Amino acid sequence: MADQKKLVEAITPMEEDFAQWYTDIVKKAELMDYSGVRGCMVIEPYGFAIWENIRDILDRRFKELGHENVSMPMFIPESLLQKEKDHVEGFAPEVAWVTHGGSEELEERLCVRPTSETLFCDHYARVIHSWRDLPKLYNQWCSVVRWEKTTRPFLRSVEFHWQEGHTMHETAQEALEETERMLNVYADFCENDLAIPVIKGRKTDKEKFSGAEATYTIEAMMHDGKALQAGTSHYFGDGFARAFNISFQNRENKPQTPFQTSWGMSTRIIGGIIMTHGDNNGLVLPPAVAPIQVIILPIAQHKPGVLDKAYELRDRLKGSFRVRVDDSDQSPGWKFSQYEMKGVPLRLEIGPKDIEKGQCVLVRRHDREKVFVPLEDLENAITAQLEEVRKGIYEKALQRRESMTYTAKNLDELKEIADTHPGLIKAMWCGDPACEEKLKEVAGVSSRCMPFEQEHLSDTCVCCGKPAKAMTYWGKAY
Amino acid sequence: MADQKKLVEAITPMEEDFAQWYTDIVKKAELMDYSGVRGCMVIEPYGFAIWENIRDILDRRFKELGHENVSMPMFIPESLLQKEKDHVEGFAPEVAWVTHGGSEELEERLCVRPTSETLFCDHYARVIHSWRDLPKLYNQWCSVVRWEKTTRPFLRSVEFHWQEGHTMHETAQEALEETERMLNVYADFCENDLAIPVIKGRKTDKEKFSGAEATYTIEAMMHDGKALQAGTSHYFGDGFARAFNISFQNRENKPQTPFQTSWGMSTRIIGGIIMTHGDNNGLVLPPAVAPIQVIILPIAQHKPGVLDKAYELRDRLKGSFRVRVDDSDQSPGWKFSQYEMKGVPLRLEIGPKDIEKGQCVLVRRHDREKVFVPLEDLENAITAQLEEVRKGIYEKALQRRESMTYTAKNLDELKEIADTHPGLIKAMWCGDPACEEKLKEVAGVSSRCMPFEQEHLSDTCVCCGKPAKAMTYWGKAY
Repeated sequence: MADQKKLVEAITPMEEDFAQWYTDIVKKAELMDYSGVRGCMVIEPYGFAIWENIRDILDRRFKELGHENVSMPMFIPESLLQKEKDHVEGFAPEVAWVTHGGSEELEERLCVRPTSETLFCDHYARVIHSWRDLPKLYNQWCSVVRWEKTTRPFLRSVEFHWQEGHTMHETAQEALEETERMLNVYADFCENDLAIPVIKGRKTDKEKFSGAEATYTIEAMMHDGKALQAGTSHYFGDGFARAFNISFQNRENKPQTPFQTSWGMSTRIIGGIIMTHGDNNGLVLPPAVAPIQVIILPIAQHKPGVLDKAYELRDRLKGSFRVRVDDSDQSPGWKFSQYEMKGVPLRLEIGPKDIEKGQCVLVRRHDREKVFVPLEDLENAITAQLEEVRKGIYEKALQRRESMTYTAKNLDELKEIADTHPGLIKAMWCGDPACEEKLKEVAGVSSRCMPFEQEHLSDTCVCCGKPAKAMTYWGKAY
Repeated sequence: MADQKKLVEAITPMEEDFAQWYTDIVKKAELMDYSGVRGCMVIEPYGFAIWENIRDILDRRFKELGHENVSMPMFIPESLLQKEKDHVEGFAPEVAWVTHGGSEELEERLCVRPTSETLFCDHYARVIHSWRDLPKLYNQWCSVVRWEKTTRPFLRSVEFHWQEGHTMHETAQEALEETERMLNVYADFCENDLAIPVIKGRKTDKEKFSGAEATYTIEAMMHDGKALQAGTSHYFGDGFARAFNISFQNRENKPQTPFQTSWGMSTRIIGGIIMTHGDNNGLVLPPAVAPIQVIILPIAQHKPGVLDKAYELRDRLKGSFRVRVDDSDQSPGWKFSQYEMKGVPLRLEIGPKDIEKGQCVLVRRHDREKVFVPLEDLENAITAQLEEVRKGIYEKALQRRESMTYTAKNLDELKEIADTHPGLIKAMWCGDPACEEKLKEVAGVSSRCMPFEQEHLSDTCVCCGKPAKAMTYWGKAY
């Protein structure tokens, strides 16, 4: 059968061609399909179910912290986009422009939102009047468009899904706290739910968001040593608010400008999951977001009682786990490969002998460890094994990141590491964008972040030798 | 305080100016805000929470029936839109066109999706090969754009949120069953969750979806007697599939074209909720989708123990109901008006005397009926009262619809009813679009649907006197 053949075909090993390995996985695990629209993808059911799980976890966390969901228009009038100078400079070159509605040319062009600060500010200007109206803690789940030249599934696409939180506060202090709080939500989500270790830090001025005073980021390291910016949180001060004339009566009955943040995480994190946990057998999914957590495979399913037992276990487990039975007539070997490709964390095998003994077999996807489990203790065993998966893949990723993180004391050292060792480089920096430019030019690396956890490696900038301001991570990035 | 003043201000009575009453509610219940983009609205937290509840209920039902969520691009290349002749004729005049990406003019214009049949077909052509790939039962939650000239919040906007299901089947029979099944899901959701009585039927050829063979609809009647199309389900036969060269190997190993459906419900249903249940005190929300089902109002809250009791009740109830305490320093009278405006189904009052007696007061929003409830029986009482609300508002809407539905035997009768009595008119029809045109011209009514539950009113068409084919509902519509 065509389907069978397609799926047992091996994927390109990552050591051979990492980019092709990635592409093979997104296609063969049926996460996405290319569409007829350049740079826009079809997210297929299995891929979208991962995003739905990500969304549900984050959405619950946002709401627990008092955030509310809203919906803003998908279009931004050109004049609105232009209100904040740095912002328009950053985004105007990469937006899609709507110029006609039906057969009529529009008086003013509309861009398809690349991000929605301007729309939120336009709304906030109408609804914020008093300190009693603050804070405003809004979030929106939507897709946005950036006219990227080169695109890759999930990692960089013309249209992508994300959430964007946009908040307004009485004081700068409160807004700064919100910026950090939401970065911590992302970091905690990545580490505990996605099992992706991240470095928290601040972006340099060169790398920060257009219009922001400060951008905080979480950076993860992929299999190939490249960094992936996994989530960002921005502090705007009152710059946008002033540009949009947002003003409120403060507690002293005086007009005041509020302080603003925004923060976002996107479908790009699915690319991060693939490139952190995947292996040469396919996807490896963290249990918290796996569409199927346990796949039940009946062994010798034609024998009496096997399928019934499989269905019975499914019905028993489905209240606690995302579980499915594959009762198709494919061979067990085919099914093993299929669900390894799809990254299902646990495989549950049940055959006639197991039934006799009142047991089943649980096999972990990431290390293929096998345990025999008495059926009466199945729920506890699955919970424990899913936790083993989470810890196991986290540890693996953390060890890899540590073994691929280097320290450079001077430019020659940094250049040599960058040329020969994929990974991240820690080095001191003076804070001058000229040195950033030079490192990019000479060693091909960009600044990833100035981590909150600083180490004092030396007193001087790795590039110019002047007094250093901050230890900074450098590397190649997605 | 400015806020207080704004909210206790009465709204325009619906008898005086129905359109203004509607606008007052959407604004004063804080469902939406007008945006700077013509015809596009900001859906504020309270309005969006209603949509999230609608989405969650429908999404669960779709998934129980085997549907899977996906994401298609938001853009459609012009050539793709043109593949199905009737479809492009129907939609091309009302789409937004993207002509530039960044500073470059595109080689081919892209429209912002007005609906996604073409995108789904384009994908299906790539992934459907064998009868084993069928049925495909996909759904997507997104927003779409139609360049409407005149817009009204929720009822008709340039951008609106909806879900669109798109399915492919081996046989026409299966696809027809799906079309009906999904119409029934919508009807059941409207009647049981939203408490909106609906008429199920088929659209005439003139009113059907561009490109469909048959469109089924559910029609609801609003306070002012106008009809609202609340959800539609379309059967496409194999028309689109042929236009898009979708073909599969059937069970006899022969190439065959699959059969298709699509079905959608949108944020317009929020307009339907407002105009079915709302009254001159504001919104009335059906409990299933109300963001707050029970608002707890502490009475004499400065007295010792009152606030604590209110919080205790909230914490006790919050696992079972969507519940909130208003502990602000506004007066009880202000709070009563506020939550009536917001349509909260039940108000729970608790004061010092109630606490002494171990009771509280529950007041139903829609009829202001008051019951005293012993605190030990509170959960049961709330469940029972929410069910009373649901039944009560459903019955009220049904009685109104029945009292505003008329029968016409000839054109003069129909015209007179249409001129003098807002509502729906049942009349026999020959099936000729010319008669539809004439009724529109003469009496200002359009065909709403040919209901599945037919009545034989007479043998001849109300318009031309030729033999009748179907009893049809006629009326003015949103």
